Amino acid sequence: MKSKAVTLAARPVGMPKKSDFAIIETDVGEPGDGEIQVQNLCMSVDPYMRGRMVDRKSYVPPFQIGEVLTGGCIGRVLKSNHPDFAEGDHVSSHHGWREAYTSGVEGIEKLGALVTDPSAYLGAIGMPGMTAYVGLLEVGALKDGETVFVSGAAGAVGSIVGQIAKLKGCRVLGSAGDQEKVDLLTGELGFDYAFNYKDGNILNHLREGAPDGLDVYFDNVGGDHLQAAITHMRPFGRIPLCGAISVYNDFEPAPGPNNLTMAIGLGLTLRGFIVSHFNHLAGDFRRDMEQWVTSGQIKYKETIYEGIDNAPDAFIGLFTGANVGKMVVNF
Amino acid sequence: MKSKAVTLAARPVGMPKKSDFAIIETDVGEPGDGEIQVQNLCMSVDPYMRGRMVDRKSYVPPFQIGEVLTGGCIGRVLKSNHPDFAEGDHVSSHHGWREAYTSGVEGIEKLGALVTDPSAYLGAIGMPGMTAYVGLLEVGALKDGETVFVSGAAGAVGSIVGQIAKLKGCRVLGSAGDQEKVDLLTGELGFDYAFNYKDGNILNHLREGAPDGLDVYFDNVGGDHLQAAITHMRPFGRIPLCGAISVYNDFEPAPGPNNLTMAIGLGLTLRGFIVSHFNHLAGDFRRDMEQWVTSGQIKYKETIYEGIDNAPDAFIGLFTGANVGKMVVNF
Repeated sequence: MKSKAVTLAARPVGMPKKSDFAIIETDVGEPGDGEIQVQNLCMSVDPYMRGRMVDRKSYVPPFQIGEVLTGGCIGRVLKSNHPDFAEGDHVSSHHGWREAYTSGVEGIEKLGALVTDPSAYLGAIGMPGMTAYVGLLEVGALKDGETVFVSGAAGAVGSIVGQIAKLKGCRVLGSAGDQEKVDLLTGELGFDYAFNYKDGNILNHLREGAPDGLDVYFDNVGGDHLQAAITHMRPFGRIPLCGAISVYNDFEPAPGPNNLTMAIGLGLTLRGFIVSHFNHLAGDFRRDMEQWVTSGQIKYKETIYEGIDNAPDAFIGLFTGANVGKMVVNF
Repeated sequence: MKSKAVTLAARPVGMPKKSDFAIIETDVGEPGDGEIQVQNLCMSVDPYMRGRMVDRKSYVPPFQIGEVLTGGCIGRVLKSNHPDFAEGDHVSSHHGWREAYTSGVEGIEKLGALVTDPSAYLGAIGMPGMTAYVGLLEVGALKDGETVFVSGAAGAVGSIVGQIAKLKGCRVLGSAGDQEKVDLLTGELGFDYAFNYKDGNILNHLREGAPDGLDVYFDNVGGDHLQAAITHMRPFGRIPLCGAISVYNDFEPAPGPNNLTMAIGLGLTLRGFIVSHFNHLAGDFRRDMEQWVTSGQIKYKETIYEGIDNAPDAFIGLFTGANVGKMVVNF
């Protein structure tokens, strides 16, 4: 059995480009004892992967040149030599960026019954959704009725952050990079106020959308957004630091917010996190989010690229604003 | 009765200078009903006052040009027309920058029996000591045996932070601005490692003094110190943001740390605070600190200027490194 796969051809310098990736064909072996063979249905494309393309110490080890990339994916078991897995089972793994694979079962999660499309388990009911859930409720310690601002609000994480906050009775502001996304936020997704961050001063938008200030700023982008939000926080506000997509492709480290000293008098908390710090909440998350999705209280948005040949374009698109909601490649 | 007092003659631009202050003579009236007349014994000079000299919204309102400055002081009651205060009582108030005053008793705290010099109630047993106590134990959530770094370590707050951490069995690093202070830290104050931040790269010093990284960085200075500490934090490290003396006199807002995104993967918490956020712990603090001071477990250091005429020099000295421990003006 053959499978196409994506390798890292070169470490991106600045914005990633197509030639940083290569598509190869690999052999997928027959499963040995304790192994399973899986056909992937869809793979996840996530901003954090940009960090893994740099050769440096980080919370996940760097990708190596010439090796097949890895990332989240949902697949279906074709053949199983493991007692816990049967043909047809849906599984979640980090063997993405390839169409199929044979491997041992370590790190492979059997999903059980799916309540909706498999790709949702890469997004709202997957890692980005859980990032939103733990970031807002645990790290951000959200209280019902507070005022919340989320940047990258039309993205996989941000769109869920805003909807959870609405479920909790909050006033919700979001920023995005084009008018179509802004319309989605204040329309279908129910945000109270949204703006295009390329259009006017961020702080002025925050003042208009939240005259009394912000209790929580969920930071997906860093840079100017973070600085503006700090200026507009209410006393004892919380800032979960989730991502900094605005600086991921920078050549030089970008200066941090020039108003961090405001955190002193206001008693602000800035707290970084990644979803795996909260793995103990995975059960709670899946139960809550499946219920919210099936009841229609949370809508999930996807931007789908078809075929593994388009995976590099999908990845590059994360940094040019090509996605609304979760960026997924279907096979 | 006459009293000298210090007024703000001009708002400092950059580093404060003597001509920004004026010494005047005022009349101290006889106490009316419910009022007391107090002779100040000593006054506190603190970095946070620099912020009050700027005309902007902050956690304390700005000083006004031509008005007598206010600040922490310890005095003794000369005359009392209030049933709760008697002649000879020691009182703590914010009527500093003057030798004597008559006022109502709102905001005036009767100290009861003192276990040591009155000036210690402006330092180790006063606001700076309590800032160290709540910042390290509450905001920093210090655990016994962790590794702690404090900047401005020879100052009023830093010198207490380091000694409390030693009491809790921690490895303690400190930075200061000259060799005499460094010697004090590793000598009398019992720090494990200290360095002159003007001498070599801060990050290299941290790597030498704490090869396994930092659990808590108590930030009194901001700027380069904060950036270096972020790089050297261990996972789930805490950074109480207490002060940023390195940037208080800047003409333009200084850029923040360019490595704040490291907080994401490491799960770091940066949390600003001021001591009044923790007023409910004042009783615990005074009990613990008086016991630590009288037992000799915590030593307090003071730099004393004599006479109110020297108060402006004492204040300016805060920004030139003139003080070891608490800067106090005695009358």
